[in-house]
Amino acid sequence: MKITGLKLYPIAIADPPLRSSYGLHAPYAIRTIVEIDTDEGIRGIAETYGGEGPMGLLEASREQIIGMDVFQRTGLWLDYERQAAAESSGDRSQTWFVPGENPMDRHTRTFAAIEIACLDAIGKALNKPACDLLGGRARSEVAFSAYLFYKHAGGGGIDGDAREDEYGEGLSPEAMVRQAKQMIATYGFDEIKLKGGVLDPDVEIETIRELRREFGPRIPLRIDPNCAWSVDTSVMVGESLVEELSNGGYLEDPAPGMEGMAEVRKRLLAQGIDTPLASNVAVTHFRHIPEAFRLDAVQIVLSDPHYWGGLRAQQALDHFCGVLGMGVSMHSNNHLGVSLMAMTHAAAACPHLTFACDTHYPWQTQRDEVVVGGRIAFHNGRVRIPDKPGLGVDLDYDQLARLGERYAKLPYRKRDDEAEMRKHVDPDWRRVLPRW
Amino acid sequence: MKITGLKLYPIAIADPPLRSSYGLHAPYAIRTIVEIDTDEGIRGIAETYGGEGPMGLLEASREQIIGMDVFQRTGLWLDYERQAAAESSGDRSQTWFVPGENPMDRHTRTFAAIEIACLDAIGKALNKPACDLLGGRARSEVAFSAYLFYKHAGGGGIDGDAREDEYGEGLSPEAMVRQAKQMIATYGFDEIKLKGGVLDPDVEIETIRELRREFGPRIPLRIDPNCAWSVDTSVMVGESLVEELSNGGYLEDPAPGMEGMAEVRKRLLAQGIDTPLASNVAVTHFRHIPEAFRLDAVQIVLSDPHYWGGLRAQQALDHFCGVLGMGVSMHSNNHLGVSLMAMTHAAAACPHLTFACDTHYPWQTQRDEVVVGGRIAFHNGRVRIPDKPGLGVDLDYDQLARLGERYAKLPYRKRDDEAEMRKHVDPDWRRVLPRW
Repeated sequence: MKITGLKLYPIAIADPPLRSSYGLHAPYAIRTIVEIDTDEGIRGIAETYGGEGPMGLLEASREQIIGMDVFQRTGLWLDYERQAAAESSGDRSQTWFVPGENPMDRHTRTFAAIEIACLDAIGKALNKPACDLLGGRARSEVAFSAYLFYKHAGGGGIDGDAREDEYGEGLSPEAMVRQAKQMIATYGFDEIKLKGGVLDPDVEIETIRELRREFGPRIPLRIDPNCAWSVDTSVMVGESLVEELSNGGYLEDPAPGMEGMAEVRKRLLAQGIDTPLASNVAVTHFRHIPEAFRLDAVQIVLSDPHYWGGLRAQQALDHFCGVLGMGVSMHSNNHLGVSLMAMTHAAAACPHLTFACDTHYPWQTQRDEVVVGGRIAFHNGRVRIPDKPGLGVDLDYDQLARLGERYAKLPYRKRDDEAEMRKHVDPDWRRVLPRW
Repeated sequence: MKITGLKLYPIAIADPPLRSSYGLHAPYAIRTIVEIDTDEGIRGIAETYGGEGPMGLLEASREQIIGMDVFQRTGLWLDYERQAAAESSGDRSQTWFVPGENPMDRHTRTFAAIEIACLDAIGKALNKPACDLLGGRARSEVAFSAYLFYKHAGGGGIDGDAREDEYGEGLSPEAMVRQAKQMIATYGFDEIKLKGGVLDPDVEIETIRELRREFGPRIPLRIDPNCAWSVDTSVMVGESLVEELSNGGYLEDPAPGMEGMAEVRKRLLAQGIDTPLASNVAVTHFRHIPEAFRLDAVQIVLSDPHYWGGLRAQQALDHFCGVLGMGVSMHSNNHLGVSLMAMTHAAAACPHLTFACDTHYPWQTQRDEVVVGGRIAFHNGRVRIPDKPGLGVDLDYDQLARLGERYAKLPYRKRDDEAEMRKHVDPDWRRVLPRW
């Protein structure tokens, strides 16, 4: 089954004013829907990062992709691997790049989009769900977590950009408990992740404590300041939240750099605090893992089929981490239903992925969904592998057209949370690491 | 596609009196041909270790295997993983076990047989070669090496057992050059591996030197004494063969134990000798890899789909080693064409496997082949992925019956090279490690 066509649909999806250490989410997140045609008349789809960078990389491979057998993807992988080896200028963690803009994983990102579309097409040809093309699922439903963000109010809340959302402002511990309750009431999540690195660490500590008081120890809690803290601050937070981050919780990317992470770990362990450190910043690529392992800098790796290289690479990561005794969780970016299903199939095929996956899905709405039938359903915080072939979803071309028109009108072609922060919140804002 | 039947064909294949540090090969090597039936009328086959142990493990899983969807193999894998975790008594390297008899990898061995048969059936259902069910081949032909053994003459050469072979006695450097020339003339191999640990290290060093003189630096050379040497002797051999083991050569399992290997490496490196150490003794299971990496005890891992857990596990190993900067080669046991094809598909799907694979295939003959059409062809030392579905071979049931009758008559049900050595060569022989 050979690829005969490659279509890229750039889209823009409304996004609330979410905050992180990277800055502020823009009014519209950009994504790319990838569609391949095959000589058997079967199509395959995927969703990936948006804007000129990711689109350009896919375009640059168009000649190689057209004519490719959907089963024969190793050549493309190896070609990208060679390019990456030639271009790489040493270690480039994601510390200073928003996901999707990190040169380190540009090739695995590009490969992933094509691989996922190929697996979707193969699944449709064989009438098999994507996760069952990979040795068979380890589970039939995948748990996601309530991904809380400190945020401004939507609906013109900052300076007139129309970003409606039902969660309102969330800039205090109390507001975050409200956000969590609201999200859990809607989706049924039973794990919580808080994006930190936004407010003073004492406020973020208090937020976690309030969440614990509200939900009790059966709801694991995680906090992820995206490297906003010094080693000292990270250790202080780890000391302060020993109980709150136990029972399936973790401290994600508290401090910048592999060495920083290792130092945090060492100092916490020296006090008998074994709260695991998770990462999707120090570790974003297979080549980071040996050092992370050697230094014990990271105990839980955040996978993500979008940038680790697709579903099979995701499985390799899962297996790798299982062997090294590292845990596996999953990272997320703003995304729609195609990505949600790719993440679900990926997680279903990964036995060692035992933490609830991140997802930004609650921050998007029915109005911007591009899959036929609308939003993917959650049952008790879980997405079920549907009894349908491939990813299990089809594209709504009217919606694609509408979101494409919106993309065409946007003034930006890449994600830049720092610029957005300067525009809406503080004209002098710079990303400073560590900030506290 | 569900499994409806599981047939196990125990067979015995004539084997020449090959020597290693384990002892002496018995007159007949024992293997098991595995065949699954499915509800779609498609069969899948595999070849694995022989005798009561491996057969018993497969029988013990019969209930779980019958009814299993050939695409849904993860449940079986996880079940074995749980059993292995419960049974494991710490580290059990293969130092004291012949392959196929190591309790450490009993579960991955059993899984491999079923997985390979499933992939064969899936390939037949989809009309795809097995290697293309795994993301696509990295190469379309796989190089094997001339696997030389010190040996007694066959044809009743020792005490009347009828083990005909065309290579005659090989117990001197000159005889081994003759063996190499003969094997290369027949198969076209362009890499050589010598099974050592049999004669005095000085004789084995001289053998490697004679091979180098005969074949020159374009034919990489390896020597594998299976832990027969002390660290001192290993270092001495490494020093003596710096040039001979360069250019794609390696020193395989010179000394027993991970620590021993690490010490050999350290002492050679201290002298500026970076001959890589390969292993299928210190490292036979994923759980060995972290320590091997940490200690720099092993630079090249010998994969083998038969005991690492099948084709997908083989790929995971390949990826793992690629990330860690370790090389990948492939181990072999006595085997027939079904295994040869599984090894070929496995190697074809592994980009980092860049060394010619081991194979015992030249030590078996047409008379004992169980695949339709007879012996698999080599072209310039390589086996091509055939343009046929699955493994690309079918079973010759007449041959299976004949070899099964021979198995029924055999007095032994497990491989025991030590007992064989005592019976034929030296009644007091014991495996001593290190011997030199």
